[in-house]
Amino acid sequence: MISLADLQRRIDANELSPDAAIAQSVEAVDAQDKTIGAFVCRAEDPRVANSGPLRGIAVGIKDIIETSELPTEMGSSIYRGFRPRADAPVVMMLKRAGATIAGKTTTTAFAFVDPTATLNPRNHGHTPGGSSSGSAAAVAAGMIPLALGTQTGGSVIRPAAFCGVAAIKPSFRMLPTVGVKCYSWTLDTVGLFAAGVKDLAHGLSAITSRPELMPDAAIAAPRIGVVTQDFAGAPEPAGGEALRIATLAAERAGATVRELALPDIVAEAWRIHPTLQEYEAHHALAWEYRTHRDAIPPLLRARLDETTGLLPADYDAARRVANRARKALAQLFDDVDVLLTFSAPGAAPKGLASTGDPRFNRLWTLMGVPCVNVPAYVADGGLPVGVQVIARFGNDAGALEAARFVEEALARL
Amino acid sequence: MISLADLQRRIDANELSPDAAIAQSVEAVDAQDKTIGAFVCRAEDPRVANSGPLRGIAVGIKDIIETSELPTEMGSSIYRGFRPRADAPVVMMLKRAGATIAGKTTTTAFAFVDPTATLNPRNHGHTPGGSSSGSAAAVAAGMIPLALGTQTGGSVIRPAAFCGVAAIKPSFRMLPTVGVKCYSWTLDTVGLFAAGVKDLAHGLSAITSRPELMPDAAIAAPRIGVVTQDFAGAPEPAGGEALRIATLAAERAGATVRELALPDIVAEAWRIHPTLQEYEAHHALAWEYRTHRDAIPPLLRARLDETTGLLPADYDAARRVANRARKALAQLFDDVDVLLTFSAPGAAPKGLASTGDPRFNRLWTLMGVPCVNVPAYVADGGLPVGVQVIARFGNDAGALEAARFVEEALARL
Repeated sequence: MISLADLQRRIDANELSPDAAIAQSVEAVDAQDKTIGAFVCRAEDPRVANSGPLRGIAVGIKDIIETSELPTEMGSSIYRGFRPRADAPVVMMLKRAGATIAGKTTTTAFAFVDPTATLNPRNHGHTPGGSSSGSAAAVAAGMIPLALGTQTGGSVIRPAAFCGVAAIKPSFRMLPTVGVKCYSWTLDTVGLFAAGVKDLAHGLSAITSRPELMPDAAIAAPRIGVVTQDFAGAPEPAGGEALRIATLAAERAGATVRELALPDIVAEAWRIHPTLQEYEAHHALAWEYRTHRDAIPPLLRARLDETTGLLPADYDAARRVANRARKALAQLFDDVDVLLTFSAPGAAPKGLASTGDPRFNRLWTLMGVPCVNVPAYVADGGLPVGVQVIARFGNDAGALEAARFVEEALARL
Repeated sequence: MISLADLQRRIDANELSPDAAIAQSVEAVDAQDKTIGAFVCRAEDPRVANSGPLRGIAVGIKDIIETSELPTEMGSSIYRGFRPRADAPVVMMLKRAGATIAGKTTTTAFAFVDPTATLNPRNHGHTPGGSSSGSAAAVAAGMIPLALGTQTGGSVIRPAAFCGVAAIKPSFRMLPTVGVKCYSWTLDTVGLFAAGVKDLAHGLSAITSRPELMPDAAIAAPRIGVVTQDFAGAPEPAGGEALRIATLAAERAGATVRELALPDIVAEAWRIHPTLQEYEAHHALAWEYRTHRDAIPPLLRARLDETTGLLPADYDAARRVANRARKALAQLFDDVDVLLTFSAPGAAPKGLASTGDPRFNRLWTLMGVPCVNVPAYVADGGLPVGVQVIARFGNDAGALEAARFVEEALARL
């Protein structure tokens, strides 16, 4: 994989020009994307900036994020050839930091669960996960050092785990969702994929102009609360093993680790996530559903069909639960710095029929808290399995620091 | 003006067909819009539904709200001829309720303060206010019974006050802002204009499928807290007179009325509103500002130029103040049902150079609470002056009921 932080260091030291760095990514995409299929379209003559912290960094943009210079097709024939007028704010943030938009990456239709044709670079017989399939795969395959995805249930953390890359779903609205095709305005969150946690920190800091996100040289040993989310069912053996190994590594590296039970209201929030998501999806996709129903792929169409009866009262009740759960969750962080849990039930499922299960992700999206995927171990078939590090709302720096601690602890195990 | 509730009653009773109701509006627009200039474009052959609570209701849509069948130009040459692919969710909500989209109404560029050429139907020498200029004017002139606007500072309540129509800025996100050109994602709120408060209630209830918003036959006398927002400066004499008259009317009609001081943190929230608004606007309009700066009109361009230095830390501090103020404000509603305050400093300013001052509105947009404009009296020159009735977040039904109480009390005065 291409390390963003490493590229930056070499560019800063004039060991590598921004043009050469971009040319490397272009070549890597040329070489690999015929097999992997991570890109929907690519910039024909990518512009290279000579200033900005992300000069020389080629970025893939999930194809539900609007771009003025490349089509934005939402993974759906309904938007074939659609050309937005403007770049989404988050794309402008990248450009302002000097990044080069390399192309648009594959997405499941409207970021739901109908799979794309993208392969998992670690094992071509398995899904890369979704909905940010192309972004995870392009970083995992070493094509580009940075990619944007979005998460409404588990669409950033899950594909990152399946592809063995680092990823952050930042605090809700740290990255604006304006110009990003909406599925659920309460849940949709823009996130980043990169080779390692340090790369995420450098990328997020540059995009947001937030120096506090840059990693310190020294990492404090965090107080970790391990949560197993029993309300979401048991993990597969590989998922359990990833959490066991990560916990062991963190403990050996000096972290304080203890198991934590989540309050009942938080479990209740996990249960109502679909109500909130689908009620808003019926509004967000009303035009598509009413005027192009037959062009909506089967899994999304079925979900919308099943949930047409949701009422404002159901939605209001779900929002009240979410608000109470956010308060209860915040109190847990008085005693621990971060939570540690599964990124997915196990390794990437076989075949391309499913993008996997977001049941261990959706709660954290609803809570709006920052989550970082850290690859924890490699299961049979070369398939990576990840864990997620979760911090208090707004403490993205803390989530990244603790994730780097876990990542380094795993490397030393 | 055309009363929505009255049209509904006549259509329900088969005294009027939906087609005839729409034809009336089309004729009224034909007759008046050459003078007023409330519409940017009109539906050539407006579709009339035969079912739904809003069948026969012609609606004007502010031209920053995306429509699939009419251009959406954002009040700016940058978007000349822009054709969105989809209808915004709130447009689909209208269509699902049976409403007919009559056309797109004028908006200041990107809903900021550079004026449109729309005239105030009450006095052509005065501004109709902004940024939802066309929506307020079209309802005031009796062209249409319902129009959509948006408010980030005071863009719904202020033009409603200046044009002498009822309007509601509902609780934040009651109406989705997806597909609405963003200025500030924390503030932008979709609202409605109609002839009277009952018409607003019928309209909002039908759009949202929320029966609890429909007016009851009996109205309880509310406990009213009168707030003068001294931190925002003194009103003009006409604004003060409107509040005095509305207070007197409410008291005579049996309401419990007392003056209330707002907590210091709420005043502080008023002060930081521009920080929050402009920090987000720099992101929301980054593409326009960076690639089409010269085409941005002078007042907006100057505001963006002045605020380029805002930092994430300024923004975070502003958000913390807003959160604390929301909690403090919620406590006030333990003792009163609604607040009553100025809708604008006074009557509509003379000429078209300014859309007026949102200083008595912006706090309530930031607080996310429902606000209803009620025309309170007519000043010299036939210029209406309004007051706003404000309820707790989520209590839109209570805001509408108390506003109807004040409206009826004023009629009996």
